[in-house]
Amino acid sequence: MTSNTKPTLNTCLSPALLQLYDLSNSIVVIIDVLRATSTIATALYNGAKAIVPVDSVAECIRIGKQIEAITAGERDGQIAEGLGYGNSPFEYPNEFIQGKTLVLTTTNGTKLLHMALDKGAPEIITGSFPNLSAVSDYLLSQKKNVVLACAAWKDKVNIEDTLFAGAVISKIKNEFAINCDSSQIADTLYNCAKPDLYEFMKSHDASHYHRLSNFGLEKDIRFCLEADGSPVLPMYRDGKLIKHP
Amino acid sequence: MTSNTKPTLNTCLSPALLQLYDLSNSIVVIIDVLRATSTIATALYNGAKAIVPVDSVAECIRIGKQIEAITAGERDGQIAEGLGYGNSPFEYPNEFIQGKTLVLTTTNGTKLLHMALDKGAPEIITGSFPNLSAVSDYLLSQKKNVVLACAAWKDKVNIEDTLFAGAVISKIKNEFAINCDSSQIADTLYNCAKPDLYEFMKSHDASHYHRLSNFGLEKDIRFCLEADGSPVLPMYRDGKLIKHP
Repeated sequence: MTSNTKPTLNTCLSPALLQLYDLSNSIVVIIDVLRATSTIATALYNGAKAIVPVDSVAECIRIGKQIEAITAGERDGQIAEGLGYGNSPFEYPNEFIQGKTLVLTTTNGTKLLHMALDKGAPEIITGSFPNLSAVSDYLLSQKKNVVLACAAWKDKVNIEDTLFAGAVISKIKNEFAINCDSSQIADTLYNCAKPDLYEFMKSHDASHYHRLSNFGLEKDIRFCLEADGSPVLPMYRDGKLIKHP
Repeated sequence: MTSNTKPTLNTCLSPALLQLYDLSNSIVVIIDVLRATSTIATALYNGAKAIVPVDSVAECIRIGKQIEAITAGERDGQIAEGLGYGNSPFEYPNEFIQGKTLVLTTTNGTKLLHMALDKGAPEIITGSFPNLSAVSDYLLSQKKNVVLACAAWKDKVNIEDTLFAGAVISKIKNEFAINCDSSQIADTLYNCAKPDLYEFMKSHDASHYHRLSNFGLEKDIRFCLEADGSPVLPMYRDGKLIKHP
């Protein structure tokens, strides 16, 4: 297979750059490592029926009542007022989440997912270290163009989402045409960090590491940087994320 | 000096992210390594009186006539119609540029400089590998907040501007408070690449390496990645870049 016939792979490091990428013919991978997409993978792996991502606490409460679902979301490290649960993957073990629907409000990840929909993305999946191989294997199997879309933090590029993009790239790059400096940067960053992602985040004072560790969430961070603990592929269909296939 | 009293350092990887940064109290370093800011440093070092950065070819021609200056700029790797010279630092040796004013039109770098002005940046300098130490030493001497602003390529993050931001960071980071993941990413990238920046650009198929080498400009690329060949500090004052002090 020559590079001309390979599908393309691009990385978008911030939602504020999404308009630069053509999503119309691509699989878009939404990446919000700390912690939205890690929690989504974990809840689905542990048996959740579906996850409904919503923008606001108010909408989370409203939809939660409509469909009699669990509501979850945090603001500033606390469960938001009116919601039942938080953003930690540890809140969603099998014995709790099996067969249930979770309405989840997050800021960066949900916003990006809705932006990708608005831009006409035909297929959206979510990625995080807990489902790294599931995402990578799926992308390899589909042979379609890919956009790795980092949720970042209030539009600022962050280390952890860039690292995850790099982890995917390092697994699949031989099968894609990559004419994208952001992908090369992510791949290089991941190769530097991979001996110990947690230590890399800590020693580079990643802003999100700082934020979450101030809330006592080192355990969450470690889990969210560990590959393949929740091997499942979350796919967006009809307003919700469900396990594929 | 504790970290609380150190000035801050932030890196903006694309003009499309500039609105996320507070420029009002910062020195802004405009970075457009291939080739605008490298050529600016080189022309000033070789004796140019001033460089007037303008957005368009039409404005370049108009101002060039007004002030009887040399006009320069390229579009798609060719000297733009109506202008006298191109974007290569090799076009501006001392025997040609000494005492003259150069009106230079570039796309990414000029746009970013004007954005920074619009956002109220009180002080703007330009940075590139040929004047790496001059920029770094100046930033160290001023003890003010710094924003390293990458011109990128049509708003897409690029490797070479990120590398230069990383090179500055690696020189000055101990004297600044860095709560900025983009800066950490740039620093890490530079540390990976620094044994051979040219080889890094080539082996990672940097999009701009690709573009310029297709025009036969490997010599330009090598020059623009070499540190301290044009040790000068270009500072923006009253519509033009002049040598400081």
